[in-house]
Amino acid sequence: MKSRQFLLAKRPIGTPTAENWDYVETELPSLAENQVKVKVLYISLDPAMRGWMNEGKSYIPPVGIGEVMRAGGVGEVLESTDPNFKPGDYVYGGFGVCDYAVLPTQGIHKVDPNLAPLERYLGVLGMPGMTAYFGILDTGQPKEGETVVVSGAAGAVGTVVGQIAKIKGCRVVGIAGGEDKCRYLVEELGFDAAIDYKNSDVKKGLKEHCPDGVDVFFDNVGGDILDDVLTRINMKARIVVCGAISQYNNTTPVKGPSNYLSLLVNRARMEGIVVFDNVANYPKAAAEMAGWIAQGKLVAKEHIVEGLETFPDTLMMLFRGENFGKLVIKVDH
Amino acid sequence: MKSRQFLLAKRPIGTPTAENWDYVETELPSLAENQVKVKVLYISLDPAMRGWMNEGKSYIPPVGIGEVMRAGGVGEVLESTDPNFKPGDYVYGGFGVCDYAVLPTQGIHKVDPNLAPLERYLGVLGMPGMTAYFGILDTGQPKEGETVVVSGAAGAVGTVVGQIAKIKGCRVVGIAGGEDKCRYLVEELGFDAAIDYKNSDVKKGLKEHCPDGVDVFFDNVGGDILDDVLTRINMKARIVVCGAISQYNNTTPVKGPSNYLSLLVNRARMEGIVVFDNVANYPKAAAEMAGWIAQGKLVAKEHIVEGLETFPDTLMMLFRGENFGKLVIKVDH
Repeated sequence: MKSRQFLLAKRPIGTPTAENWDYVETELPSLAENQVKVKVLYISLDPAMRGWMNEGKSYIPPVGIGEVMRAGGVGEVLESTDPNFKPGDYVYGGFGVCDYAVLPTQGIHKVDPNLAPLERYLGVLGMPGMTAYFGILDTGQPKEGETVVVSGAAGAVGTVVGQIAKIKGCRVVGIAGGEDKCRYLVEELGFDAAIDYKNSDVKKGLKEHCPDGVDVFFDNVGGDILDDVLTRINMKARIVVCGAISQYNNTTPVKGPSNYLSLLVNRARMEGIVVFDNVANYPKAAAEMAGWIAQGKLVAKEHIVEGLETFPDTLMMLFRGENFGKLVIKVDH
Repeated sequence: MKSRQFLLAKRPIGTPTAENWDYVETELPSLAENQVKVKVLYISLDPAMRGWMNEGKSYIPPVGIGEVMRAGGVGEVLESTDPNFKPGDYVYGGFGVCDYAVLPTQGIHKVDPNLAPLERYLGVLGMPGMTAYFGILDTGQPKEGETVVVSGAAGAVGTVVGQIAKIKGCRVVGIAGGEDKCRYLVEELGFDAAIDYKNSDVKKGLKEHCPDGVDVFFDNVGGDILDDVLTRINMKARIVVCGAISQYNNTTPVKGPSNYLSLLVNRARMEGIVVFDNVANYPKAAAEMAGWIAQGKLVAKEHIVEGLETFPDTLMMLFRGENFGKLVIKVDH
């Protein structure tokens, strides 16, 4: 059986282009012990993928040249040599950017299509949801009545962060690109306000919408927005460094936060998070979030693009700020 | 009675020069209730003074134009209308850059010249000592066997930070400017190693002297050194932001740390401190440090320059990295 796969052909300098990828058809191997063959149904597209394309030490090893691009996905088991999985099971795993995969079952777990649409296991009920949950609660530590600001607010992580902060009784202000996204955050997700960084002045927006300053900032974007928020933080503020999508395609050094001495003046904290540290507590978090979804307090939003071959361009939607909610590819077969 | 005083004449742009100061002689007022007249003996020179010269919100209000420059000092009470103070008492207070001062007794406390030389109450037993104590212990949280790096290591705060980290059983590496300072840190203060940032490559030095990475970084300087250390931090590292003396005289925006995403990769924390938050615990800290001094575990080092009129240039020694230990002016009378 053949699999269509996107391989990393070349490490990008700056913004990835078509030449960074090889789109190939490869004959799949037969199954060794404790392996499954999976028909990949949905592929998760995440800002972190840009980092995995770079050489060098990070929180996980880079994708090797000539390897299938790493990606989370949801699929259906076609064959199995592991007694815990049988054909017809729906599973989450790191299948990569491809339409069929053969791989060890370690790290793969079953998902239930009756509890939620399959793509949701890549969003609220997957890594982005976990990132949001542990990042805002454990590191952000929002208290009732505090003001929480989130950047990349209309993205997979940001939408969940803001809604959890609302559940915790905070004033929530989102920063997102475009009127549609901003309207959605306020009208559909219950954010108290949203600042359109593409069409308005972020500093002015923060002044207007955070009259009592900022207690928690959950940052997905870095760059100028991080600097703007640093001018408005309160004493003992917590800044959760989840990502810096504005900087990932830089060919110059990352723009460090010029206003970081605001941390000193305000006895504030900036702390980095990586979701994998919380693996042991995923089930607890998933259960709590499922409860919030059932109660209508947590709304899921996915952005589905059809066709595996769209991958190189669909990935770029993240960096152009074009996705609206969790970005996934629905694989054609 | 007249007092010689340095007034802030003009806010500096970049490096302060002679024209930022008015050196005047002023007739002192007679004492109102609960005031003292003090003969100022030693004046504390601190990097933070540069910040107080700027306009705008910070952790304390700026010095006003035409006001005596703010400074801590130690002096002798000449007259008092407060029953708690009598002529001949030695006191610590915010007397400003002058040789005599009349001021309310609020915030003034007695010091004992028999326990320690008077200038020491501006160093180890004063604000720099308190800054070091609470910054390294409460925010840095060094654990036995961890590696602690301190920048501005030969300064008033850095010398104390490093010695406390040694007392706590850490490997301690100082970053300082010049061979003399580096030799002193290792040979006299017991640092495990010192990196001479003026004559050697800091990144290379960190690699050599921190073979197990950096668990705690106590930063007094910011700029390139902060970025260099960020490349070497360990998982869950703590960066204590105490100051950024390399940036205080900038006429361009502060250089933010380009490598701040190392916080994310390493789930590390960067946190600002201001010593005044610990006022209630100063006595406990002073007692513990006095004990360490008595046991020979904590060595004090002051750099004394004579003459009030040297103030404008003596202050600049801090920014040129010329002071060796706590910088004080011994006032001539």
